Amino acid sequence: MFYFHNDYSEGCCPELLELLQQTNLEQTVGYGEDPYCAKAASLIRGLCGDDQLAVHFLVGGTQANLTVIAAALRPHQAVVGAVSAHVNAHETGAIEATGHKILGLPSQDGKITAAQIQALLDKRQQEGNLEHSPQPKLVYLSQPTEYGTMYTLAELEQIAAVARANGMLLYIDGARLGYGMACRGNDVTYRDLARLSDGFYIGGTKVGALFGEAVVLRNPAIAEDFRYFIKQRGGMLAKGRLLGLQFYGLFRDGLYGRISAHAIDLADQIRDVLREAGIPVLVDSPTNQIFPIFEDGMLAQLEQAYLFTFMERVDDTHSAVRICTSWATAPDAVQALCAEIRRLTAKT
Amino acid sequence: MFYFHNDYSEGCCPELLELLQQTNLEQTVGYGEDPYCAKAASLIRGLCGDDQLAVHFLVGGTQANLTVIAAALRPHQAVVGAVSAHVNAHETGAIEATGHKILGLPSQDGKITAAQIQALLDKRQQEGNLEHSPQPKLVYLSQPTEYGTMYTLAELEQIAAVARANGMLLYIDGARLGYGMACRGNDVTYRDLARLSDGFYIGGTKVGALFGEAVVLRNPAIAEDFRYFIKQRGGMLAKGRLLGLQFYGLFRDGLYGRISAHAIDLADQIRDVLREAGIPVLVDSPTNQIFPIFEDGMLAQLEQAYLFTFMERVDDTHSAVRICTSWATAPDAVQALCAEIRRLTAKT
Amino acid sequence: MFYFHNDYSEGCCPELLELLQQTNLEQTVGYGEDPYCAKAASLIRGLCGDDQLAVHFLVGGTQANLTVIAAALRPHQAVVGAVSAHVNAHETGAIEATGHKILGLPSQDGKITAAQIQALLDKRQQEGNLEHSPQPKLVYLSQPTEYGTMYTLAELEQIAAVARANGMLLYIDGARLGYGMACRGNDVTYRDLARLSDGFYIGGTKVGALFGEAVVLRNPAIAEDFRYFIKQRGGMLAKGRLLGLQFYGLFRDGLYGRISAHAIDLADQIRDVLREAGIPVLVDSPTNQIFPIFEDGMLAQLEQAYLFTFMERVDDTHSAVRICTSWATAPDAVQALCAEIRRLTAKT
Amino acid sequence: MFYFHNDYSEGCCPELLELLQQTNLEQTVGYGEDPYCAKAASLIRGLCGDDQLAVHFLVGGTQANLTVIAAALRPHQAVVGAVSAHVNAHETGAIEATGHKILGLPSQDGKITAAQIQALLDKRQQEGNLEHSPQPKLVYLSQPTEYGTMYTLAELEQIAAVARANGMLLYIDGARLGYGMACRGNDVTYRDLARLSDGFYIGGTKVGALFGEAVVLRNPAIAEDFRYFIKQRGGMLAKGRLLGLQFYGLFRDGLYGRISAHAIDLADQIRDVLREAGIPVLVDSPTNQIFPIFEDGMLAQLEQAYLFTFMERVDDTHSAVRICTSWATAPDAVQALCAEIRRLTAKT
Repeated sequence: MFYFHNDYSEGCCPELLELLQQTNLEQTVGYGEDPYCAKAASLIRGLCGDDQLAVHFLVGGTQANLTVIAAALRPHQAVVGAVSAHVNAHETGAIEATGHKILGLPSQDGKITAAQIQALLDKRQQEGNLEHSPQPKLVYLSQPTEYGTMYTLAELEQIAAVARANGMLLYIDGARLGYGMACRGNDVTYRDLARLSDGFYIGGTKVGALFGEAVVLRNPAIAEDFRYFIKQRGGMLAKGRLLGLQFYGLFRDGLYGRISAHAIDLADQIRDVLREAGIPVLVDSPTNQIFPIFEDGMLAQLEQAYLFTFMERVDDTHSAVRICTSWATAPDAVQALCAEIRRLTAKT
Repeated sequence: MFYFHNDYSEGCCPELLELLQQTNLEQTVGYGEDPYCAKAASLIRGLCGDDQLAVHFLVGGTQANLTVIAAALRPHQAVVGAVSAHVNAHETGAIEATGHKILGLPSQDGKITAAQIQALLDKRQQEGNLEHSPQPKLVYLSQPTEYGTMYTLAELEQIAAVARANGMLLYIDGARLGYGMACRGNDVTYRDLARLSDGFYIGGTKVGALFGEAVVLRNPAIAEDFRYFIKQRGGMLAKGRLLGLQFYGLFRDGLYGRISAHAIDLADQIRDVLREAGIPVLVDSPTNQIFPIFEDGMLAQLEQAYLFTFMERVDDTHSAVRICTSWATAPDAVQALCAEIRRLTAKT
Repeated sequence: MFYFHNDYSEGCCPELLELLQQTNLEQTVGYGEDPYCAKAASLIRGLCGDDQLAVHFLVGGTQANLTVIAAALRPHQAVVGAVSAHVNAHETGAIEATGHKILGLPSQDGKITAAQIQALLDKRQQEGNLEHSPQPKLVYLSQPTEYGTMYTLAELEQIAAVARANGMLLYIDGARLGYGMACRGNDVTYRDLARLSDGFYIGGTKVGALFGEAVVLRNPAIAEDFRYFIKQRGGMLAKGRLLGLQFYGLFRDGLYGRISAHAIDLADQIRDVLREAGIPVLVDSPTNQIFPIFEDGMLAQLEQAYLFTFMERVDDTHSAVRICTSWATAPDAVQALCAEIRRLTAKT
Repeated sequence: MFYFHNDYSEGCCPELLELLQQTNLEQTVGYGEDPYCAKAASLIRGLCGDDQLAVHFLVGGTQANLTVIAAALRPHQAVVGAVSAHVNAHETGAIEATGHKILGLPSQDGKITAAQIQALLDKRQQEGNLEHSPQPKLVYLSQPTEYGTMYTLAELEQIAAVARANGMLLYIDGARLGYGMACRGNDVTYRDLARLSDGFYIGGTKVGALFGEAVVLRNPAIAEDFRYFIKQRGGMLAKGRLLGLQFYGLFRDGLYGRISAHAIDLADQIRDVLREAGIPVLVDSPTNQIFPIFEDGMLAQLEQAYLFTFMERVDDTHSAVRICTSWATAPDAVQALCAEIRRLTAKT
């Protein structure tokens, strides 16, 4: 049985485990104030071309999102994002538990547009009585999105422009950012993310680390006292160096990019086979998540050897599933899956 | 200029002001533990046919909603209601500020159905990973709804059945309950509300009182320690007798019903004229809120003498507005408005 | 039986009820945007000598406190106040329910000092690891305090200086402010409060109104979007004019001062009698709250005719109680109480 | 320079790193539903002698505390603990951020007593107006405490009895539980903790793991839907097996006990030397934390080679510091420290 159902089924890149091993008995100060966190933060600031950025390391994505949003908003302010946004659909009301409403915008492919945001604001103005509903203040995007799709640089520029014109903040969830950076056609750089957003995070958990997300904050109003927020929300790791060390390992010599490219190459192989076999997809995504719509019989046969994530029932005889590749995906497994898809579609 | 834009433009029924006057210098204990609160609670328990009900008096509707919901839910639990529900659209994220997400169901007329609730629950089960999204636990309805529409007894029975079958709670916001009770075709009684819901409130602010809502709780798990919740959320009035006294005045001899019927009679007159004049409505409502769609020129003329609430732009030449009658609406004003509508439509 | 146990046992000054009566059927817009709120706010700005002040009217004190504090603080920030502060001891964790810790300073008489605040901050610096405890950000005082004591102008100046020197905010709860302003020896004016604090409120509920507190905000960072906070916390009264009207009545011609002086005159009579009779007090307070320590037998006799609030058991044969006068206290009742104290102490 | 200032300066026991290495490329399901979490939970249930216990693994102590407390309390309920309790003094208001007040009881040595808890409850009853302050509902203890002291079984039995007699919950923070279990004179077993408390946690972060705390819940009302709480508060690790694996490693063959005993042996050596040298301690603790009071000159000399935690200034010439040993402390370092203390005191 091979697990294609997500990108966190394994431990971490051997290089990172090796670093943990080498430094295991070193003594450092705790809570993220060690030299490894400092080095990793410095590497990330370099990558983003801005040595003023605040960089903090958190254990997981929900934790990163809720901590940043709690730090960014006053209590009457709301988040604007896609209905399918991770914060809206997959975090058990973590944002609401910090007191903030999420205003969901409809989206087929996980992306929202500058025009949607502006329309939401215009509707509020037209209706009046502004203080009877929360103030839309922070735009939440994922790059790539929940559906593996990517914002182009032009789209991000437009969204950032709308946000700034309306006094809003822009925050970008990069849980799978490496895979986005590595995909064909991507034209957004780390510098762009740092420049256009008030804050974003670079995902480690799904891209080679045991765990860890690097939160990058450009806006000083969010960054002020951010360590208090990390501690208050339960995200301050006593042995913070574990986070710093992993991000140091991921960024000291390009490991993060190489392992992401590995996952994309394998995903592209699967995409090619699906296309050749005439298997449609629920959403056309260029990153490490693929959403094929399989006929029931075929799916049942594939699922004897491969684990996928069920997405939705498409019609009486078809379901959409999610296939993920990752830094850890074995090329052999992908080739076997591709061969099986070819065999089953040839048979049909 | 006559204000038809809401049902809280005036003070209160003279009978209630008279009661305040008569008792003004009486000394009572504070915080709702006075004899007037006790009497009013007793009248309401009688009305509902259940002497086990907990009855508490709060100042306003948002306060009532957030206090009940805070008392009813554990932190991981969510509210299910119409997208247009007052708690979702008009309370500035008050529910989210207590930590709870609201799961909005689409609705054209402000009502939701038992089938919609069941479908939401079924979809969750099908998707699995239940703990990655909040647990739908409390169904929020308004009777009448934001659009003045009414649930029938059969509809309420079905919703209550779905809620109970799924371990959910049912809470009914009765900000305008008097007007609902008085409208033609209503087949729901106070006994039904008390029997079918875990809690509901009887609105005073919009139905004759200076302010005040009577929260009625059947479910002991919500009622337990409810006074702590009132105090913690800032809703415990030092001179609580002001609330008890007003509800005593509204229910000792049927005043609440009489003034509601007054508002409905006047609303029915307006509805008749609109129908005769061929003016369409945004939603067909039988209560004290009417939502006509006026042509721009006609609306401009009407707005020289009457204040309405803008609802939405319907097309390039028409807008929907809200007209409210209330316990305080002068029959003369309604007749003048009706005459003006007739005159303007005759002219056209 | 005469109630001396608090200052909210009756309704309101007849002058205010008269105003409610006169305006009862006037139509105004809702939610505090009516002309009476505007007039009352203007009177208060005049009183404070600053026409830039934001003035908002809320129903009660707990609501005022939690709304101001929610608007003033970021989530990691804490309130500093006396252990006996109303927000710490009598509001059911309302402040914590908005997410903020209260750091309690010991106090015998309800007052805290500039030196205590500075010492708290110094201790934090000395201990280091600042982000492991909440950031002390807002100093909460009551004027008068829970024990009826008063800050002098010099004390307020010192506290304000410490707060500003440390980037902290100063907020003053004036639930009984009128009684403080009227007491002998007071040297603090409304102008001083407005000038020295970031915000304070003028209490109506305990000083002549049916209900209502006037929140006065000098600091624009707290005042920004304050109406959202009022609405979100359930404090926005639909018929907001009821609040404006009462404060208009209290401040248009000095009623607030006159009724406060009435209460103080009566309290001074009681204080004189207690002193003459050699009855000690728990705390020496100059305002409308008096805290005599009665011998058990004497207390039992007094309590046959008078209701007091139990404060604490002082020793095996004595208890401290609270006696309140108010705008509504009948001089006859005070004279009868004084006579009874004289009689009982003469007998002993 | 050797770090004695805490017990989380290094990575983890080599045995655990070895386990991570061996299983690194295994594929498992995520979010704590893998076989390693199941095995570890089973071992812990065995240790506690109760196969009905719910066992969940979280990353850190603040996270564990806030998640359990959020799951255990309704919004109006408060935590009772020592003023010095970790939740009160070192978690940046994390508990208040979930909405709950902490009622601090004074304590010199970090312990509170059954009598203190009962007195708090009695005082509330005596004062009346119960709903004007939060309801004390959950007793929070640490075993060992912040000051390294231990509750005896008799003390725990008494506290548990008071809690249950008053409808309260008992929760025990075991961040350093291993060191407590291993100390001389301890008479409390895992079975006792499981039997007497509603929930407790076994600390991994400070006792040999990279990170991780095992939350053990006996009370089904807290355990119900606990995974929702973990997710909502940002504590659900995608690669949950990392937690299961470490606790499996700690408990499969007694490693947790052995490494704890190692730390206690070394601490006892330091205690012996301090005693011989006549160095007083701030608190007399039997576990891995020692609180000597050093004369300034001596402290300055020690700090040239050893890192301690500053606790407090005791008088003009003495300060108390904390010395921690841990699973990772090198016997050589302890012997060198002891020799230096002997040398410095001999010199004096």
